[in-house]
Amino acid sequence: MSETYTASVVGGTGFTGGELLRLLADHSAFDVVQATSRSDANRTIGHVHPNLRDLDLRFSKPDDLASVDVLFAATPHGVSMDQIDAFRDAADTVVDLSADFRLPDERYYDEYYDGHSRPELLEEATYALPELNRDALPGADLIASGGCNATATMLGLYPLVEAGILEPSDRTVVDVKVGSSEGGAGGGAASSHPERSGVVRPYAPTGHRHEAEIEAYLDRSVDFTVHAVDMIRGASATCHTFPEAAAAGELETVDLWTAFRDAYGDEPFVDLVAGGGGVYRYPEPKAVAGTNRAEIGFAAEDDRVVVFAAIDNMMKGSAGQAVHAANVALGLDETAGLDQRGLHPVGAP
Amino acid sequence: MSETYTASVVGGTGFTGGELLRLLADHSAFDVVQATSRSDANRTIGHVHPNLRDLDLRFSKPDDLASVDVLFAATPHGVSMDQIDAFRDAADTVVDLSADFRLPDERYYDEYYDGHSRPELLEEATYALPELNRDALPGADLIASGGCNATATMLGLYPLVEAGILEPSDRTVVDVKVGSSEGGAGGGAASSHPERSGVVRPYAPTGHRHEAEIEAYLDRSVDFTVHAVDMIRGASATCHTFPEAAAAGELETVDLWTAFRDAYGDEPFVDLVAGGGGVYRYPEPKAVAGTNRAEIGFAAEDDRVVVFAAIDNMMKGSAGQAVHAANVALGLDETAGLDQRGLHPVGAP
Amino acid sequence: MSETYTASVVGGTGFTGGELLRLLADHSAFDVVQATSRSDANRTIGHVHPNLRDLDLRFSKPDDLASVDVLFAATPHGVSMDQIDAFRDAADTVVDLSADFRLPDERYYDEYYDGHSRPELLEEATYALPELNRDALPGADLIASGGCNATATMLGLYPLVEAGILEPSDRTVVDVKVGSSEGGAGGGAASSHPERSGVVRPYAPTGHRHEAEIEAYLDRSVDFTVHAVDMIRGASATCHTFPEAAAAGELETVDLWTAFRDAYGDEPFVDLVAGGGGVYRYPEPKAVAGTNRAEIGFAAEDDRVVVFAAIDNMMKGSAGQAVHAANVALGLDETAGLDQRGLHPVGAP
Amino acid sequence: MSETYTASVVGGTGFTGGELLRLLADHSAFDVVQATSRSDANRTIGHVHPNLRDLDLRFSKPDDLASVDVLFAATPHGVSMDQIDAFRDAADTVVDLSADFRLPDERYYDEYYDGHSRPELLEEATYALPELNRDALPGADLIASGGCNATATMLGLYPLVEAGILEPSDRTVVDVKVGSSEGGAGGGAASSHPERSGVVRPYAPTGHRHEAEIEAYLDRSVDFTVHAVDMIRGASATCHTFPEAAAAGELETVDLWTAFRDAYGDEPFVDLVAGGGGVYRYPEPKAVAGTNRAEIGFAAEDDRVVVFAAIDNMMKGSAGQAVHAANVALGLDETAGLDQRGLHPVGAP
Repeated sequence: MSETYTASVVGGTGFTGGELLRLLADHSAFDVVQATSRSDANRTIGHVHPNLRDLDLRFSKPDDLASVDVLFAATPHGVSMDQIDAFRDAADTVVDLSADFRLPDERYYDEYYDGHSRPELLEEATYALPELNRDALPGADLIASGGCNATATMLGLYPLVEAGILEPSDRTVVDVKVGSSEGGAGGGAASSHPERSGVVRPYAPTGHRHEAEIEAYLDRSVDFTVHAVDMIRGASATCHTFPEAAAAGELETVDLWTAFRDAYGDEPFVDLVAGGGGVYRYPEPKAVAGTNRAEIGFAAEDDRVVVFAAIDNMMKGSAGQAVHAANVALGLDETAGLDQRGLHPVGAP
Repeated sequence: MSETYTASVVGGTGFTGGELLRLLADHSAFDVVQATSRSDANRTIGHVHPNLRDLDLRFSKPDDLASVDVLFAATPHGVSMDQIDAFRDAADTVVDLSADFRLPDERYYDEYYDGHSRPELLEEATYALPELNRDALPGADLIASGGCNATATMLGLYPLVEAGILEPSDRTVVDVKVGSSEGGAGGGAASSHPERSGVVRPYAPTGHRHEAEIEAYLDRSVDFTVHAVDMIRGASATCHTFPEAAAAGELETVDLWTAFRDAYGDEPFVDLVAGGGGVYRYPEPKAVAGTNRAEIGFAAEDDRVVVFAAIDNMMKGSAGQAVHAANVALGLDETAGLDQRGLHPVGAP
Repeated sequence: MSETYTASVVGGTGFTGGELLRLLADHSAFDVVQATSRSDANRTIGHVHPNLRDLDLRFSKPDDLASVDVLFAATPHGVSMDQIDAFRDAADTVVDLSADFRLPDERYYDEYYDGHSRPELLEEATYALPELNRDALPGADLIASGGCNATATMLGLYPLVEAGILEPSDRTVVDVKVGSSEGGAGGGAASSHPERSGVVRPYAPTGHRHEAEIEAYLDRSVDFTVHAVDMIRGASATCHTFPEAAAAGELETVDLWTAFRDAYGDEPFVDLVAGGGGVYRYPEPKAVAGTNRAEIGFAAEDDRVVVFAAIDNMMKGSAGQAVHAANVALGLDETAGLDQRGLHPVGAP
Repeated sequence: MSETYTASVVGGTGFTGGELLRLLADHSAFDVVQATSRSDANRTIGHVHPNLRDLDLRFSKPDDLASVDVLFAATPHGVSMDQIDAFRDAADTVVDLSADFRLPDERYYDEYYDGHSRPELLEEATYALPELNRDALPGADLIASGGCNATATMLGLYPLVEAGILEPSDRTVVDVKVGSSEGGAGGGAASSHPERSGVVRPYAPTGHRHEAEIEAYLDRSVDFTVHAVDMIRGASATCHTFPEAAAAGELETVDLWTAFRDAYGDEPFVDLVAGGGGVYRYPEPKAVAGTNRAEIGFAAEDDRVVVFAAIDNMMKGSAGQAVHAANVALGLDETAGLDQRGLHPVGAP
């Protein structure tokens, strides 16, 4: 008989909070005992998330945190660093989906955010992304789930980095396309349907915060631009890389395949999709929408290797990654609660 | 040489305000001298409306209204009835796009709205829709532009009413599908892109305010339901009518054609689209997006005549109708400034 | 230990064929041993359906049918009636997703289709929709899955019919909105992305074939119109009903609630969604996309009761219904393989 | 009184053919006397293009070309080179929208296409894009309209090239996002609505033919990748450039502004959109949909200058460019027939 852990979700009305509740509701090892929401306290979860109408649970105010085994925090950036003591008092393991504990050094917060109020905890925190950081997760009690765009980018670049094909000094241009769920549930004029529909909008032409994460975990800086496009879920990173080995004519396609297979051949959530026939020849976010899967593929031309990475920003890029990391941290089956399959055909989920 | 009228737009940052500015900017008989906005005062018009970047005009606060020939008011419901004296002091002709002066009797405001503060003006006001009300418009100095869903519905039903085919007692079910621009520029959770995309959402299952307009101007009540669907511009009314003559077997298709041709044969902005081949056999809002055109068509089966009416809710259903009415009121060419042509192909404008 | 049934899917490259494969792949009681496709024979299933890349199976030509316990046929209308002997030779149970065996009487095929080549089998066939027909399914060996639009409509009307609220003579207008997957995988100009995007298109103004199904199983004729709207998955039926009891002032809201709860209180796949607060107050297809769930709700006004029904046309309206019926026919848990949960937020899946 | 030219459109059923007809129908200097179509011969133009229902013209077979002043050819690649003698016999001026006469040297056709059957004409042809090539156009009698993606890219890069900021040896990565109208009216599985909706699909990861055009007219090679995204009209080029001057710290923002203003300050169809506030801070294709306008903007960071260029692929990227070039060639007002204004709000046109 398998063990069950009690869990709570702090910030349950937001999109990633709802996604956590979706995953935990059907996860055999977790029992959600609390979901907090200041705005929707006392309402049913199904009031906000129509896909969760069968859950017999109401939001509670975040003031009285239940004592649980695992607390998942899906609050806006800045809240977790303020509330971290209360979170850790309430739970043995805290998994934070915000940026507050993602970066290993206070200097990143000074440069990319508004500083950090609890910098001494940064080295205690463990970055979540299992494909990069699996060995550090077992037993971790403060876990920081990665940023969606950084996750897509790093999953794309990691095999080339790990294989020594892409040096830190090699030029890497990352052009990201993201869906509207990244903007959160709050609304606002720019994210209203009439303004946001049909866009190809450069929303972070330069200076996106996720550059920090890539710098911290892949040890290099990249040229990073993010566009909003017309989908709800999804992040697609097109990584134009220029390995010196390619310029030198010393990089064969087989080397690339080897690098990607070495990195991901045993990974339960990564599919290599490169070339082939039919309609779906390269990674596409809509093929992985609603799932914790990442599609990774590449194409090479002259001195360039273009890597494509596609994820659901709220799953592999946030809530799914968090549950995956919790699974690893607690010694559960990695894929527990994360076996959702994608749809075909499917539009712009 | 043609005469030019000075014009102002009160409430220029909203969607219909922007649409008025688009139309007036390219209208040979109007010269826009003021556009007001409380939220964006001192900003250029192009700051809010990217299609108007070439206009050399900044929003001003609505406190000092310029003296003009024609004032167009694109303010939320309730504002015009409060400000009407100031509007009429500032302009010889006031064209109001809100509901405040649309209905001919105070009782409608009591039933469907929160009452009316200036009911004595209701009989002074002239309803705008020229296809129904052309003769009343010349010389009118307080014009009330119709509601979008009511406009689509009435344009659909009017020929059957006028021909005596559809009696007031005949059952008429109107199922309307509308785009997100009807919700205005304000935003809010339900109209955010992630929540509003891909919907078929019954947003007014019963009791929609536009029933009042139909009752007032077509002298009958209809069974009216409105759905939000995934487009930005557009209102499509499917009118399921059950003429007694049809049940009696006394209605031929040629009678229907005659009724529609009699009503609209000479109308500059109405196209009859019924049957035929190809992809576009019946009225579709996307075929008229951005234009002041209405497409009207029908199909008959047993005792039912289904009439389809498609318009751009912000044009024929609001700003275009207002300019059309102003053209008629001032004795200008009816089509002046309203000759925009639709696009093909086109998506969800 | 639970029994496992071998299964095959004839016509596996189409959308409903792919949906069947998705469901059966994760269904504990079925083992798919063959998927046929003339156009993609020898290709992997993942070549066509990117969400099924993990399946270790290739399409085979439909000429040699494997012997299986259950054969699911997802072929175009007309194929099953021609191939039915081969299907029944190959399998103990045949579940047909086409229209070929849906209707109980040859006269429907003469009126709405091009006749029927094997009319003597019509009375052997069992209609699939368990909410209407559960008791007839156990042991059935020729099962005909219902049409998507008819399914949505009948699920909406059935409670009123069953409760005796809606008489066969009461006027019932059904206005349906459907997604593009109904057009199938074949393509064609009208269903190309540039032409099909953003539409509100009356594609069956009158005379839709699914009227026959409603007449056959609800014993009444309805006034039926179908519109194409911009989504991929989904069918939404708005049923404007006019019960004589409502006109007589003898119908209370509580009577309606009682009717709907009596009909669906114990149904595992039907949710009543009527009123309440928040964004999702009435049935919406996007809330059930990818699932076998139906959302049913209603609103009443004067002599009208408007019933809203929303399903995923490929799931509850086709492949999900087929698997549900097979579960019942074989005595399995009804919900086996059909516990997919919807997403929030989600766009136009 | 202004002169009028007779015109014909060969290939009038396609999307760019329809766009030509839209422009020419409202162009004061052109009188369309023939539109050809093999598939729709004898049908009205409005049968295919619903926005042109008012045109009193039927398609004719392309076998008998009318004698006209200007023939516009909107045929698939390869047709014009075969028919060019007939075209030139029929018209004084031929404007070709295909790739057949775009490239100045046969070697490009050998490398990127299937060769060229009339290479001796390549040096007679004049490339259309007036912003790059205005001086060559007056009097030209064989004009080749540019490719959409190449047009967006070159409009973005040209100011940096012209100012000497971007050297041919400087790394330039171009990441393009395009709408579904680029695929043409033909349909096919990949461009069907269910498959094409909601995509971020790498459709030309490397080796796109438009690289040839950029090489030919900007004298450098770029790293070029094209993605399909969910819009119908529009091409957006994000050009990540790495000027050596930027790396050397010798490039100021003012230099960039100067370069862009020098290049486009007097251009009637180019808007500089860079930074500022509000929702629309950078170029977006939906802001120029239906118009011949290009929006160009940029952002700089470290050694990188990111240039954004947005056009309507069928207008500035094809039919609009062709009419613009014809206007210049014939000595007309450059903007004649091209003053369409964009819409706001607008979705995915």
